[in-house]
This record gives sequence, C-alpha cells and structure tokens, in this order.
Amino acid sequence: MPETIVATRSFTEKLVAARSASLSLATADAALKNRALEAIAVAVERNADRIIPANDLDLANGRENGLSSGLQDRLRLDEGRLRGLASAVREVAALVDPVGENVRGQTLPNGLKLSQVRVPFGVVGVIYEARPNVTVDIAALALKSGNAVVLRGGSAAENSNRVLVELIQEALASVGLPADSVQTIDEFGRDGAKQLMHARGYVDVLIPRGSADLINTVVAESKVPVIETGAGVVHVFLDESADRQWAIDIVQNSKVQRPSVCNALETLLVHEAAADRLLPTVLADLAASGVTIHGDERTRALFPDAVPATEDDWSTEYMTLDLSVRVVSGLDAALEHIRRYSTQHTESIITNDLGNAERFLAEVDSAVVMVNASTRFTDGGEFGFGAEVGISTQKLHARGPMGLSELTSTKWIVRGSGQVRA
Amino acid sequence: MPETIVATRSFTEKLVAARSASLSLATADAALKNRALEAIAVAVERNADRIIPANDLDLANGRENGLSSGLQDRLRLDEGRLRGLASAVREVAALVDPVGENVRGQTLPNGLKLSQVRVPFGVVGVIYEARPNVTVDIAALALKSGNAVVLRGGSAAENSNRVLVELIQEALASVGLPADSVQTIDEFGRDGAKQLMHARGYVDVLIPRGSADLINTVVAESKVPVIETGAGVVHVFLDESADRQWAIDIVQNSKVQRPSVCNALETLLVHEAAADRLLPTVLADLAASGVTIHGDERTRALFPDAVPATEDDWSTEYMTLDLSVRVVSGLDAALEHIRRYSTQHTESIITNDLGNAERFLAEVDSAVVMVNASTRFTDGGEFGFGAEVGISTQKLHARGPMGLSELTSTKWIVRGSGQVRA
Repeated sequence: MPETIVATRSFTEKLVAARSASLSLATADAALKNRALEAIAVAVERNADRIIPANDLDLANGRENGLSSGLQDRLRLDEGRLRGLASAVREVAALVDPVGENVRGQTLPNGLKLSQVRVPFGVVGVIYEARPNVTVDIAALALKSGNAVVLRGGSAAENSNRVLVELIQEALASVGLPADSVQTIDEFGRDGAKQLMHARGYVDVLIPRGSADLINTVVAESKVPVIETGAGVVHVFLDESADRQWAIDIVQNSKVQRPSVCNALETLLVHEAAADRLLPTVLADLAASGVTIHGDERTRALFPDAVPATEDDWSTEYMTLDLSVRVVSGLDAALEHIRRYSTQHTESIITNDLGNAERFLAEVDSAVVMVNASTRFTDGGEFGFGAEVGISTQKLHARGPMGLSELTSTKWIVRGSGQVRA
Repeated sequence: MPETIVATRSFTEKLVAARSASLSLATADAALKNRALEAIAVAVERNADRIIPANDLDLANGRENGLSSGLQDRLRLDEGRLRGLASAVREVAALVDPVGENVRGQTLPNGLKLSQVRVPFGVVGVIYEARPNVTVDIAALALKSGNAVVLRGGSAAENSNRVLVELIQEALASVGLPADSVQTIDEFGRDGAKQLMHARGYVDVLIPRGSADLINTVVAESKVPVIETGAGVVHVFLDESADRQWAIDIVQNSKVQRPSVCNALETLLVHEAAADRLLPTVLADLAASGVTIHGDERTRALFPDAVPATEDDWSTEYMTLDLSVRVVSGLDAALEHIRRYSTQHTESIITNDLGNAERFLAEVDSAVVMVNASTRFTDGGEFGFGAEVGISTQKLHARGPMGLSELTSTKWIVRGSGQVRA
C-alpha cells in the first residue's frame, strides 16, 4: 500500500527518489508522458468514491478549525469539479512538449555545431495552500515538462492531497513511469516545508503559490532557487484622451469580474483633465456593483460617496470589492505613483494618445503592461499557454504568466569532430 | 571631485541613485549607449597616467600582504592590458542591443496584440575579486544591456577600481547618461558586500564571480536573486570507439591549454575496452606537459607514474596541472560517475558510436554537453556572444556562458482596443 511506503520513508529518501524518477522523466518521450496524463485524468474521473470521502474529512476538519467559507469553497471537491480537473489534465496533454525545443543554435566558424535546447529542471518543489485542485494541475504541468515534483499542499487539504497523489502514482506506474515522479511531503508538516526550502542539490527550483505571507516566507528562507508568484497591486490610468466607454468597461471588468485574484484592479489613477468627464460615471458604475471607493480629496469632491483614502490604501492588494482612486496631474505623476506603489504585476493605460501609450509601455516596469485592455487578461489561459503554473512578478527566469516552457531550463549541446581551442 | 561625492554618500543613497540611473538607461537607445562605450574605451586608453599609479599602489599593498604571484598578475594593469580593455569595450559596443528584442508574440482571437520583449533587469550587483579588468568588462556589458551596475571588486584592487569607475562615470556624463549608472561600493568594505546581498528591492540580480568560496557565500547569504557562476569539475569520457588522435588532442587541449579556468578538464574517464589502446599515450603526452596524474588502480597498472587517486580527487577542481583518471566499465558507469561528481559545468564524450553520443548528450545534466570537442570551448567568446558575464552552472534564468541577453529580463506588452474579459 502506498501509505505504508510513504510513512516509512524519510524526507531525504523521498527527495532521492524524486531525483531518480526525474532521470527517467527527462528522457521520456511526449507520447509516454501523454499516456500518463490520460491515465491520471481517468483516475480522477473514476475515483470520486476515494477522493470525495477524503475531501469530506478535510472539510469537516476545516469547519471544526473555523476555516472561512471562502477557503472551504476552495477546498471542496465534487463530481463536477473532478470532471473539470480531468479535463484540465487532458488540456495539458494536448500542449506541445517543451522538452527538446531548439531555442537557438548555429555552426561556428571552426565547424562546431551549437544548439541550446530546452530540458526539464529535474525536481520541482511546490508549496501551496488548501487547494487540492492545484495538486493535480501542478502534477500535470510538471510531468508534461519532464520534471519530478515534490508537493507540500498544506494541512487543511492533507487527506484530499494524499488520495490524489496515490491516484496519480498508480496512474504513473500503470504506464511504466516511476510512481515517485509525483510525491507529497504533507506528512512532514510545517517542518517538511522548511526542509524543502533548504534542500539545495535535491530540488532544482521551488515555486510558492498562495498568500503574500507564504511567498515572503519562502523567498526569505529558501536556499533553493525560487520563482516568486507575487501579489498584484494593479493600476489602471485613465489618460486625458481616454475613450469614455472603454474607461467604463475596462475599469468595471478589471475590478469587478473577479476581485479576489491577483490581476484584479486595486488602484485607479485619473488624469486631472479627464476627471470631471470620466470619474462620476466610472465610479457610479462601480458603486452600483458594490465597490467601495477609497478616494483622495479630488476624487471625493467629484464622488462624495467615497471614503477617504489613506497612505496604506495605495499599497494595499484588497482582493475585495474595494478600490483606491487618485486624481493625478498627468502621465508623469501617474508613472511616479506606479513606480512607488506597484508590485510590478500588471498596469494598463486607457488612452488615445500614441505618445503617451508608448511612454507608458516603455517606462512602466511591470511583468505585463497594457494599453486599452482589461488587467484581467494577465493569465496563462488567456495568453494561450493552455495552463498556468502561476504569475511570476520577479525578473529572473520567468516574468508574467508561466506556462510549460517556464518549467524548463536549457542545455547547450556541442557536436564536434575533434576540435580543440587555439 | 568624484571621491568627495562618493565618500559622503550612504550605502542606501548609492543604491537609490543606481535605481534612478537605471530608469534613464532602460530607455536609452543603442546609439547613445554605444557613444558612452566609445567614451569609456577612449578614457581607458588615454588615462594610463591616472590608472597605473593607482594600480601600482594596489600591487605594492598586495606584495606587502603576501598576495600570490598569480593573483598579482591578475591584478596588474599596464598599457598593453589597458589597450586590450578598451578594445573589449568596443567589441561590446559592436554587439546587437538586446533591449527591445521581440522574443515571442501573437495576436489573440479577441484582437489583443501580445509581445514579449527584452528589457533590462534594472540594477545589477556584481561581487568579484581582485581583477580590475572585470570592472571595465562588466560595466560595458551592463550598460549595453541597459542596466545600472553596483560593483564590489574586493579590497586588493580598491585603488585601481576607484580610478576606473571615476573614468567610466566621467565618460557617461560626457554623453549625457547618468554617472551613477556605474558605481563601486568598495569603500564600504566587507560590510558593503553583505549589505548588497540584502538589498532586495534595490538590486534586481546579483552575480558573484570568483572563487567557489565567494560564490557559496553569496548563494547562501543573498536575499537578492543570484545567478551563480560556478566551479567546474569537468569530465571527458573516452568511449570504446574513441578516435585515438582526437582523444590525445582533446584531452591535451582540455587539460593543458589553460588549467586555471573553470572549463579546464579535471577528471578523465576511460572505457575499460579502450584503456590499453589509449591511456598510455594520452597520459604520457600529459605528463610531458607537466601534468600530475591521479589514477585509480587500473590506471596506475597502465601508467605507473600516476599517484593514487583518493576519493576527494573525484570532486576536486584542481585548476592546476593535475588530473584525476579512472577506468570505467562503460558508458553507464561513466554516466553514473558524472552524475555523482560533476558540478554540471561541461562534459565531453570522445566516441564514434552514434547511440552512445546521443545517450551522453541526453543523459548528462550539465550546462554544456559535448561530443568530440575540447571542454575549453565553453566560453562566451567562443560561442559567439562577443563577451561574457560568466558561466552559469545553475538552471534558473541562464545556463552556460552568459552574454548580453542573459543580463536582461522580459516584459509582456499587450495592445488592445477596449477588450474586457468575458
């Protein structure tokens, strides 16, 4: 029984097994990896009777421990959600295998043939919180990109994750891939997360997904290289020439469509010459959707229902139906505000002025910079990546939505015929 | 006088000035950056009378402090070396500007135009040791890629570096770029290096160049993302079918041409079926060039002059005219040895067997993997990058020789016409 094996293995033994599995995965061809993914999809669809009781146990524990209704909802798996998970795995299977992609190459004057090709990282560690769907999503993405993965999913989803990982391991074994390609370390508790952050040499890259607290802890503690998926204090700037309807639609969509995610709007900046024309309607529309406006003095003069914005508001990622609004003297002041308060996730300018659009694109130093589009488009699915590991707000390795190729490294291949250096 | 300004500035003030300079550099066009590089080249050529006395002072201090003759040689600048430095700067100027390169892009079904473009990191920190030429090289590479750079060059070269940075700053100012684009923090001593490692938010990436000790310290301590330029325990494997002349030439070149660098050969593995045919000649040739052979038992049976290899030898980066040699049972044993002892820098197989060549290329997990070529080719200059920041042995962001594009991040540009997410 997998439980017995898991329980008797030390943390280091599990990491050694992950490394060993990664060697098989690195040279597995796309057809084999896709058979594994199909087997995982089938297992998730057909084993509701194993998954849902485990999930019910987590939910019962959650209620007992006072888990909020929002987090309980994130934790819940039902037959519909399992079908959705299986379908997500099949979408990953349908993507082009990133491994072996020739990134660049050339033949040198001395006849050496150089090519830089994509290779898996090896062993990927992921630390996340109480969302069992992430277990399946990340396992699928890691396998497709040829990586073994070590998952630390949080105690609130421990029973759900244990069953999901067992099913994934059985599916892997059924097609002849190492079951250890996907492992959970939940049984080691908080100490396991800490050990994972110090497992330099065993784990090639660590990806934290979840709250700002979780991410900050991992970034501060980890000795393993981290890809940071960060918070979004996202800005829209309504320039003097902004089209009125675009301003209304884009602000509404950016703030209201799904306020709890990192690409949702948090601060609206408005050119003072457009404030009279745009703000009353834009803000009335938001208020009608239940948004609380935190406005500076000039905003409140135009929209008296706004509560006063505090200094803290400018750097707050609400993730709720709250919005900070500030009237600025122009593009320079907007750029200055964004430089000071943005988390460099996504910013958008609504304008009809070509020069201002180009300056905004060039000078805003964020993962995604937009002209006349909703900030909600910063998303791997929307970008056409098919699936998303997370959205990187760091500058190293990956920036913005991360798809399969962001889960790979590269390696230089040199083919010679006896060349030596002069 | 620059000295006065430098002395009155706090560490944080310098980093804030670097960030501010980076904003100008990020939008500077290639023509302006190239004028700055030409001004730097001219300044280095024409100011031997300022540089060499400062360098003499460093050399005198070095002799007093017992600096080895090898390190004294690395520290020394003379008119010839200054001409070489100026010419290296002009080579960087001649390279294509990586900033703005369109990496990938597409128009989405909803009409959004997506493009991923190269952008500078912002502020790059570099920590290195007693090599004033690195000061000029790194400044040139950072400027060309639109980055401000903060240099910590080590106390042994402090006077040389101070004058070089002054000259670079004067050159930058002469073309209208911020002098603070290139700064040294040598005046803060060891504490400055430590503060640089903790300057998260001020410094976007930190690159250590130098000894394994230096690199390990930076990797362990830094809160700023690091690109690790690592040690090379480099292997060549002579397969059963290895061409005799290629084996002789490639081993000789890999070991002897420049033994003190990271791409030099440290361990030779030989297929047992080729040992009789190849080892005596290959090792006799090396011995004739002054190489000390550290052999396993079977090697010493064929080459009695070898000293016995110890377990430590297999993981030693000698950087001297020493070589570890082991007879292995075949490709699998060679791969196993490399997995265990390699630092994942460069490995090369000498073979005429296509299947073995492809397995070696696929299964060796190193930055550069070669067939029938000298390991000395792992080099930015040889790869055609024109210049080299260092050789990355990590898997995140950059792997292998790092040129200009490895000093950049990317940013997603989204151009819309009012699109909102459904």
